[in-house]
Amino acid sequence: MAHPYDLVIENGTIHTPTSTYKANIAVRDGKIAAIGGAFEDAARRVDAGGLEILPGIWHVHCHFREPGHTYKEDFASGTAAAAVGGVTMCIDMTNNTPLPTTLDMFEEKKALVAPKAHIDYALYGGGLYPRTVEALAKAGAVGIKIFNTRHIKEVYPYISELGVLDHGILYELYEATRDVGLVASVHHDDPEWCKRLTFRDYINQGRTDALAYQESFSKGYMYGHGMVAGLAASLYYARIVGVKLHVLHLGVMPEGANEMIRHAKFDLGQDVSSELELGTLFMTREQMEKVGPATYNWGYNPEAGWETIRNGVADFIVLEHAPHTWEEVQPGWQDMFSIPLGMTGAQEFVPSMLNAVNEGRLTLNQIAKLAAEAPARRFGIYPKKGVIEVGADADFTIADMKREAVFTKADMLSKSGHTSWEGMKVKGLAAYTIVRGEVVAQDGKLKGSRGYGKFVTGTATA
Amino acid sequence: MAHPYDLVIENGTIHTPTSTYKANIAVRDGKIAAIGGAFEDAARRVDAGGLEILPGIWHVHCHFREPGHTYKEDFASGTAAAAVGGVTMCIDMTNNTPLPTTLDMFEEKKALVAPKAHIDYALYGGGLYPRTVEALAKAGAVGIKIFNTRHIKEVYPYISELGVLDHGILYELYEATRDVGLVASVHHDDPEWCKRLTFRDYINQGRTDALAYQESFSKGYMYGHGMVAGLAASLYYARIVGVKLHVLHLGVMPEGANEMIRHAKFDLGQDVSSELELGTLFMTREQMEKVGPATYNWGYNPEAGWETIRNGVADFIVLEHAPHTWEEVQPGWQDMFSIPLGMTGAQEFVPSMLNAVNEGRLTLNQIAKLAAEAPARRFGIYPKKGVIEVGADADFTIADMKREAVFTKADMLSKSGHTSWEGMKVKGLAAYTIVRGEVVAQDGKLKGSRGYGKFVTGTATA
Amino acid sequence: MAHPYDLVIENGTIHTPTSTYKANIAVRDGKIAAIGGAFEDAARRVDAGGLEILPGIWHVHCHFREPGHTYKEDFASGTAAAAVGGVTMCIDMTNNTPLPTTLDMFEEKKALVAPKAHIDYALYGGGLYPRTVEALAKAGAVGIKIFNTRHIKEVYPYISELGVLDHGILYELYEATRDVGLVASVHHDDPEWCKRLTFRDYINQGRTDALAYQESFSKGYMYGHGMVAGLAASLYYARIVGVKLHVLHLGVMPEGANEMIRHAKFDLGQDVSSELELGTLFMTREQMEKVGPATYNWGYNPEAGWETIRNGVADFIVLEHAPHTWEEVQPGWQDMFSIPLGMTGAQEFVPSMLNAVNEGRLTLNQIAKLAAEAPARRFGIYPKKGVIEVGADADFTIADMKREAVFTKADMLSKSGHTSWEGMKVKGLAAYTIVRGEVVAQDGKLKGSRGYGKFVTGTATA
Amino acid sequence: MAHPYDLVIENGTIHTPTSTYKANIAVRDGKIAAIGGAFEDAARRVDAGGLEILPGIWHVHCHFREPGHTYKEDFASGTAAAAVGGVTMCIDMTNNTPLPTTLDMFEEKKALVAPKAHIDYALYGGGLYPRTVEALAKAGAVGIKIFNTRHIKEVYPYISELGVLDHGILYELYEATRDVGLVASVHHDDPEWCKRLTFRDYINQGRTDALAYQESFSKGYMYGHGMVAGLAASLYYARIVGVKLHVLHLGVMPEGANEMIRHAKFDLGQDVSSELELGTLFMTREQMEKVGPATYNWGYNPEAGWETIRNGVADFIVLEHAPHTWEEVQPGWQDMFSIPLGMTGAQEFVPSMLNAVNEGRLTLNQIAKLAAEAPARRFGIYPKKGVIEVGADADFTIADMKREAVFTKADMLSKSGHTSWEGMKVKGLAAYTIVRGEVVAQDGKLKGSRGYGKFVTGTATA
Repeated sequence: MAHPYDLVIENGTIHTPTSTYKANIAVRDGKIAAIGGAFEDAARRVDAGGLEILPGIWHVHCHFREPGHTYKEDFASGTAAAAVGGVTMCIDMTNNTPLPTTLDMFEEKKALVAPKAHIDYALYGGGLYPRTVEALAKAGAVGIKIFNTRHIKEVYPYISELGVLDHGILYELYEATRDVGLVASVHHDDPEWCKRLTFRDYINQGRTDALAYQESFSKGYMYGHGMVAGLAASLYYARIVGVKLHVLHLGVMPEGANEMIRHAKFDLGQDVSSELELGTLFMTREQMEKVGPATYNWGYNPEAGWETIRNGVADFIVLEHAPHTWEEVQPGWQDMFSIPLGMTGAQEFVPSMLNAVNEGRLTLNQIAKLAAEAPARRFGIYPKKGVIEVGADADFTIADMKREAVFTKADMLSKSGHTSWEGMKVKGLAAYTIVRGEVVAQDGKLKGSRGYGKFVTGTATA
Repeated sequence: MAHPYDLVIENGTIHTPTSTYKANIAVRDGKIAAIGGAFEDAARRVDAGGLEILPGIWHVHCHFREPGHTYKEDFASGTAAAAVGGVTMCIDMTNNTPLPTTLDMFEEKKALVAPKAHIDYALYGGGLYPRTVEALAKAGAVGIKIFNTRHIKEVYPYISELGVLDHGILYELYEATRDVGLVASVHHDDPEWCKRLTFRDYINQGRTDALAYQESFSKGYMYGHGMVAGLAASLYYARIVGVKLHVLHLGVMPEGANEMIRHAKFDLGQDVSSELELGTLFMTREQMEKVGPATYNWGYNPEAGWETIRNGVADFIVLEHAPHTWEEVQPGWQDMFSIPLGMTGAQEFVPSMLNAVNEGRLTLNQIAKLAAEAPARRFGIYPKKGVIEVGADADFTIADMKREAVFTKADMLSKSGHTSWEGMKVKGLAAYTIVRGEVVAQDGKLKGSRGYGKFVTGTATA
Repeated sequence: MAHPYDLVIENGTIHTPTSTYKANIAVRDGKIAAIGGAFEDAARRVDAGGLEILPGIWHVHCHFREPGHTYKEDFASGTAAAAVGGVTMCIDMTNNTPLPTTLDMFEEKKALVAPKAHIDYALYGGGLYPRTVEALAKAGAVGIKIFNTRHIKEVYPYISELGVLDHGILYELYEATRDVGLVASVHHDDPEWCKRLTFRDYINQGRTDALAYQESFSKGYMYGHGMVAGLAASLYYARIVGVKLHVLHLGVMPEGANEMIRHAKFDLGQDVSSELELGTLFMTREQMEKVGPATYNWGYNPEAGWETIRNGVADFIVLEHAPHTWEEVQPGWQDMFSIPLGMTGAQEFVPSMLNAVNEGRLTLNQIAKLAAEAPARRFGIYPKKGVIEVGADADFTIADMKREAVFTKADMLSKSGHTSWEGMKVKGLAAYTIVRGEVVAQDGKLKGSRGYGKFVTGTATA
Repeated sequence: MAHPYDLVIENGTIHTPTSTYKANIAVRDGKIAAIGGAFEDAARRVDAGGLEILPGIWHVHCHFREPGHTYKEDFASGTAAAAVGGVTMCIDMTNNTPLPTTLDMFEEKKALVAPKAHIDYALYGGGLYPRTVEALAKAGAVGIKIFNTRHIKEVYPYISELGVLDHGILYELYEATRDVGLVASVHHDDPEWCKRLTFRDYINQGRTDALAYQESFSKGYMYGHGMVAGLAASLYYARIVGVKLHVLHLGVMPEGANEMIRHAKFDLGQDVSSELELGTLFMTREQMEKVGPATYNWGYNPEAGWETIRNGVADFIVLEHAPHTWEEVQPGWQDMFSIPLGMTGAQEFVPSMLNAVNEGRLTLNQIAKLAAEAPARRFGIYPKKGVIEVGADADFTIADMKREAVFTKADMLSKSGHTSWEGMKVKGLAAYTIVRGEVVAQDGKLKGSRGYGKFVTGTATA
């Protein structure tokens, strides 16, 4: 005979953005059916005694490389890594081949990834053609991702054809995105500036090795002032258009960006949000020097990043996942301006945050807000996801704050075969990753199956 | 045999500050035991089909006149009126006789009111003697109420002996309140200013009738610019002391106060909150002219008040309850400067807000925040109260948004025997008022019993 | 026998930025030798009884079209027009042929214009090659003018080769300009935006006539939002470089520019100035409709412009002079997007301002500041010019506030042969234009001679 | 035969707020008749070769103690000291006996001081009775001085009867002062606060000696937070009344005052000015410990003061002159809370500023603005005074920037017989003090005669 509940999580402590309390949770049909109660009759029980229950964590900045670059990562390996790390929901980016910028190609990507996902996922539509935005939105895109950038040497993962540098087109993409009510998520840049200055002061000086690159990063060259200048123009256009703007790569950009967003958001009342890249808070000089080209950013001024959490400039937190193979990045020790830039983060994201909680820099309540509630609300998926509440999807990240680990490539499920965080110690790991009531990972082991993850559509589907 | 649940609320729609969803709620031992589930076995069931479930509404500004002035109101009549209106938790003020400014007198008040309360309640300690603040805090005061005011003609409910006009004493009260970690809630004023200008331009001109008073109110005389000037000084002292300041009577004060609080809160980062008096949004000129001395404020510029909700200057909303008898206020038609000033609001508060929801000026989610979560958090009673979450007190205000009523004294439980809102129509009424799992009022009828309401202590009890 | 003074101006009223007083002024060797006194023995006397003496007015935005386009205007006709209007000092722009962007071409321009000038003048160096900035500065450029723009159809006066759209080059021009201590004066733009939107909504719709253009101007298309977006990026680059930035075309840009400059200047403390184009305050709809393609801007929201004077966002005022021949602009009635855009202002500038004084919108003290002291200080020519003070150049604009005139092409000395202000009445005219003690114009008649005007060098000459 | 000029100042360098230039100055009838020229025929010549000519310096905060306390100082000795120091114009305060708060008493003071003044002077009217403000203004008061304070032990120079603590009266004084168009200059305070805290933490602890006092000063007790709280309320009242408010004792008040004035002035656009007490920038710990009770303030945080000059919060600079006899203040070594508080500054003011110029902290141009132009403009005496311009009064402070001195009581002309700055070295002294063309002091020697100084009336005389 059928049990009244499919799953009961018992004895745990629940953390919401605003409170912390103990209660059992009962799940039925993938949703939270009940909170509180003994729930004695259930198909499955998870004992969360001594563990911390968070709403399912969102990873909002994944490059799972499918289709087209699946030797680096694919949707199966990427979502598996995320699941094992503690992520229940991810958003995938658009620099694929072919590019998901038209309905056909977006549908092709949807079809390809659907059988592979271990966790729930949303897909950005590729912002390139203003005329296709509506179709992408109706097909379920969660937002429109715009690469307002090109790489100075046209190296992947920057796909030059995907770069929207023409501000007229950018503006029309904002108009179209506004019309469908989605968020425009933008990697801002001013590649002319970046190209000219980086060549002048680094590449043409023969300073191309990994440390020279990281120096240039600290000084605002690669991923630098050009991003801020691009942001300045974009904020203005977005304001006059009235589109919801989401600023990517906060923390990677020099600090001038923080003030710009603050001014737009709090002085001018603009509808703008941003996601803080935690890599720039966590990546120490020591680690950066050790992994070299396996990371494109490092934390040369982490306090500026923490400040964005305190003052409300940052809306989300994330640890970007943009993997390449070991072989691809190793030449970066000599010439980092010619290799694919990226870093890993899908599997390391949740443990890194939990470690920061143990270090007193974050709270579990803040994580519940910045990595669950806030993205769910911004993308219009709230309260379906992002909250521990009856009726919401039964997505949980259950943490064991006492367990420790050392990040090492042997444990990584990413196809890239390495981690930017190799050798770093963390305290605080995901004990269970639960998606719509199913345990998809437990104690560092993948438990679910490919294809379980569901496509979560944006707000503009018919 | 015992039922697993004492009460089940079924078929209703739950409103939190951030979401709205349908779920049944099960209560055991006065707390929310479970949310979601059929909960078939329960001692009692409430069918909330078609109704809206809010966290139990707080009324944070009650003058229940006990001890000393119980012919106007007492704790039984006041809490009964509140219960019937839809309030589950109230905070009582301190202008009693004797004054609850010392441990003995505070304990005397506690003992007197305990057998009478229909709903849960907290008590302010009377801020007068810096040396007694610690004892009041340990005895359970929820905060320290300071009357930084006197009436220009020394008329009750202003008790001159309770007025802290000396800023040296005010400062020491802030120090003492900071040391026990409580909130200092202040009725600010500058009575010298008020007295001189009001006499000069009104009383000495023979302009004392109710309409002259209301004109003076609109111009910033009685309850006017002096309050703002007092606030200006107080904000500075509170900032250098580092006390949590709570500003009473927002909306009653001229608009200059709004900017001052905004500057302190958002530009200077001061720990300051405020409560918006909804009377200044709801009391129309027509109603004010009809009831005359039965109200001390009116809504001559309601938009300025609504703006404080939008811009975050207001933290709570309330409809002050400060009753006097009909006989006491009637001479105010001739001389409003010589009568006790006040208005009724305990019973009218929730319906007034629900009516504003039906008019599109408020949302149920905002009510859940501004009249439940926010006060609970500010006073440190969260998440015990203020939230619909497992483990929280089972306090609910269940609203029927379709029912209509006309406020009329015949329906009022206040001893004062009248209502400032006589004849006003509202749409939206409390169907059930539930305190710790007990239905204390239903469909306008009192159901609970005296003494059921519990004393809720502040955060400084040993 | 030699007189002790070359010129005495007697009986006039002097207006400075801060005061107004009566005194005679004595000039010797082109400089103010003395203020106050009877000065009985002088070679020449000017009776300024009933007249107003202003410091010599600067016209900071002249396009005198030499070399290369002298059929529209040349340095003789342009400075003659300015002199007759009341201008004593002008700054010439750089969109000439050849372009004054290298030392040779800048020296060529210097040599060409020197024998022709009726009034003193400074020359902008053409900002195009970062490596030539130092040489231009040493050769006497008063600042570096940068065209961060191109015309959407590549029509002169926009010279595409002079357009610095690459932000890397713009940045290097800022570095080079900072290193020589000059001001970088920038016509900001984002031509991609302008081109795309203007074609989409006007040109491709067949809406190209003069009124369609002026409508697009009002809506922020041509000369529109792109300028503001360009400004946004430029302000950031200028700030991190530390260059003195001067923003051209305030008032022409949509109002968003005003707030951006205000934020940079007053909140962030950036060293930025701007010049307000008075055409957008003075050009009425009636006049705009009458002259059609003979003006490129009009005053659709003059109050926003006046506000920049009041709040300190505008540092200078000017009436741009950018002439074309009548024949060149007439096709603009049909297709304004294909003709050279411009307007006249050299001769009309001072009378327009004086008329505004008579209308109560400006004061003579404000003119002394915004059109004399402020530009002299910004460009480092103060107190040599810009002030009525002993030792300063004896430059004066002496106004008769009672005389009236109607602008008409018959009176215009510009080679362009017309005026954008044809038919407009003004009250307030220059009675005398005096440059270094010589009367170069009087009562609307040219009095000086070609070649009298001297080249005023910037601050970076060796 | 009469000379055309009474005085010629030749070979000097003139400093204005905006420029520096060399020119001779000719004076006739007490006014600047001419600037520039050889002026060979003059009754008197002053050779300013190698010297710096400033507009005559204003001392805006003098307590010359007449009538009533002339054993401390009188108008002759006070103005003589000021003249010798380099001051040409002073403003006298109102805490005299009798109080110049009514027309009779103000006229009595005018009559008494007229025969004694060595330099020009203005008088504040004593703000106490709203009804007498108009008469005081018509009798020539330059502004209305309001003591919004009392001494905690009622010790002179605080005259309790002159203290306006009642905010109703303060408000009416603002109304009356607004109506006559004068400035209300206020010593703000909240004496209740000051009294209670100072007694509690110092006097009642037996900590009354001079160093304990100075410690309390640093911590914001005496002359402390109460002043800021008083300012907070006053700014609000002044804003709603619309009076021109002038804040006294900037720099003496804790830094919170600076932000308050900044907010009022620059965020809210209020018509408020302030004068910075330079004693709090110049008085070192060493000096303060040496002179003990001969100073009431010291520079425990001078950078906060310098910042107010940079950011425009300070409008004037001054070195307060509030003398008492040596015998009166000496008991302050033991009990500083019981002696008259004050310090000397009339004679030391100009040399102290010149010394700061030599130290690179000020410029002569800033002095010309902050100690001449700005007060002249604020009080409506500009351009009669405060500027070196034809027609202005021939007031000059001619400085020798190379001469050095050590302040010592033997050189002081103040009746008080001592200086708060005893033993301090300065570089930069007044060589000539010239008032309306007469040399009233030269090289430290008094040259003029009693009664030469003229009464300068405010703007409200009939």
